[in-house]
Amino acid sequence: MRLPQAAERLDTRRELWPDEVRIRVERLNLDAASFRQLERKHGGDGAAVRAEVLDIVRTRGKMQNPETGSGGMLVGTVEEVGPESPLGLAVGDRVATLVSLTLTPLVIEDDLSRWDGRSEQVPCDGYAVLFGRSIAAVLPDDLPAELSLAVMDVCGAPALTARVVEKYDQAVVAVIGGGGKSGSLSLAAARRAGAKRTIGVVPREAEAALLREAGLADEVVVCDARDPIALRDAVTAAGGPADVTVVCVDVPGCEGGAILATADRGTVVFFSMATSFSAAALGAEGLAADVTMLVGTGYTPGHAAYALELLRENPGVRGLFERRRG
Amino acid sequence: MRLPQAAERLDTRRELWPDEVRIRVERLNLDAASFRQLERKHGGDGAAVRAEVLDIVRTRGKMQNPETGSGGMLVGTVEEVGPESPLGLAVGDRVATLVSLTLTPLVIEDDLSRWDGRSEQVPCDGYAVLFGRSIAAVLPDDLPAELSLAVMDVCGAPALTARVVEKYDQAVVAVIGGGGKSGSLSLAAARRAGAKRTIGVVPREAEAALLREAGLADEVVVCDARDPIALRDAVTAAGGPADVTVVCVDVPGCEGGAILATADRGTVVFFSMATSFSAAALGAEGLAADVTMLVGTGYTPGHAAYALELLRENPGVRGLFERRRG
Repeated sequence: MRLPQAAERLDTRRELWPDEVRIRVERLNLDAASFRQLERKHGGDGAAVRAEVLDIVRTRGKMQNPETGSGGMLVGTVEEVGPESPLGLAVGDRVATLVSLTLTPLVIEDDLSRWDGRSEQVPCDGYAVLFGRSIAAVLPDDLPAELSLAVMDVCGAPALTARVVEKYDQAVVAVIGGGGKSGSLSLAAARRAGAKRTIGVVPREAEAALLREAGLADEVVVCDARDPIALRDAVTAAGGPADVTVVCVDVPGCEGGAILATADRGTVVFFSMATSFSAAALGAEGLAADVTMLVGTGYTPGHAAYALELLRENPGVRGLFERRRG
Repeated sequence: MRLPQAAERLDTRRELWPDEVRIRVERLNLDAASFRQLERKHGGDGAAVRAEVLDIVRTRGKMQNPETGSGGMLVGTVEEVGPESPLGLAVGDRVATLVSLTLTPLVIEDDLSRWDGRSEQVPCDGYAVLFGRSIAAVLPDDLPAELSLAVMDVCGAPALTARVVEKYDQAVVAVIGGGGKSGSLSLAAARRAGAKRTIGVVPREAEAALLREAGLADEVVVCDARDPIALRDAVTAAGGPADVTVVCVDVPGCEGGAILATADRGTVVFFSMATSFSAAALGAEGLAADVTMLVGTGYTPGHAAYALELLRENPGVRGLFERRRG
């Protein structure tokens, strides 16, 4: 048997198993890398993009871009709850799914007629099925839905960052890509978890200015994280090496620099899907670096609520998120 | 600047920087995957395999198979030690390098004339240069060199396994691929580190019989680790779920099963280079699995000495190693 993500095609029956939940879908948020690939492939022809998304979902029973392998998430309302569902949802709850669309059986019933194919936000009528081990979060009333979604999309990073930082006594924490969504939340999480010093690394001066203004990091440095020696030197100069290095930039080739920027017995947390397992493993071996390296998972219990709390209590985080949406 | 592993070509000057060490090479051990690829490519023509290895080393200044990306290790004698070398080696020491050949500047001086191109053991005269951050271990007197090398080749696994198991109180430990070199050492390490129960998972009954005879695991189960549900069920039936799951099999697609076989708040350690970062990260997210996932690095201080000690004190481990060499 194969798990849903590896499966070519999912079963999309409406009828639920006892531990499942059916959602009436109102919107899909396509993964950014997936949408960009489709846009490029069709030269920005929205109708062609829409036709391909419909074809993928019809063929595979889920939205998983065959090129990028990625999916996205969805928003909808709970339509039916199986008697043995462990998810704690009730009919009528407005929820966002926190598991990838690549694992979620999906049927589109309106041919995406309200979508022009030109944005990753896809208005949609149809249904999706959540399993017993899926994750969905009820959208809070006090925040705009889009803002909550943007936070939930990356909420694994701050929760795991906090858990790792708490294991150290007054850690120095470097967040590579500290100006982004997962990065800014991770900086806020590190500070709240007791970090002695937080260092935000960003690729460009403009982003550095925004991050400084947001006040989320004790030090903000500009550096190309793909240059290992430059990254080590930048983090060291800013008060490193880091006890905890959090990699949040979605570009390949940051493994070596992250390892070099980290102190002996320190921890590197890789959240970027561009991370290469063998580059990380062989890199640490080749550098004789005694660091713990974690695969950043998307799941820690309570992670969505925790990330939303960080956003509420940090105007700097909220400002960065709202600016990105604008 | 690029780190040595990513570099196309290394500098192979004989002259040392103050923190370097030069080794007179007596043998290369090619990575098994690399040798098999070369053998297949040239249809078992040893002369052609030899010519390609010579060409790779001449062109790149290191032995790194361009197809597999992998290298191997080498054995030799210390020829010169830079005044600032931190490696603790003395001229005349017989050593094995514990960093990959993909990071080691190498010059072959005998055209590999004593090698028939038909085995991954390559008699060789030439020199190699170790950096300040390299790792090399002096070969012990009480063990055959080949046995020591086989142990050192996988010595990162037992050391990290022990470190993880020690963090739990009486852990249940499952080792996927428990009959192999890194697997059998990891089972021995887990028991020594205080595991309450050790479970060895192997793919075939013949291997299970050998592992049972070696007495390294409390339970030995036969299971295809690429089948996630089967692996979860097998580990559970043997006394799981595991607090610590160690993945030592070099086949792709074991991430989901390893995650499912692991208890909440447990740890999965991936030593297999066949591990996919995104399959691990998205798999844990998709299954809402609250597990810590570690990139198994090749380096923990003292790892070679620790692994040799495990071999000396466990006749079962030694038996499995000697059988593999036979």
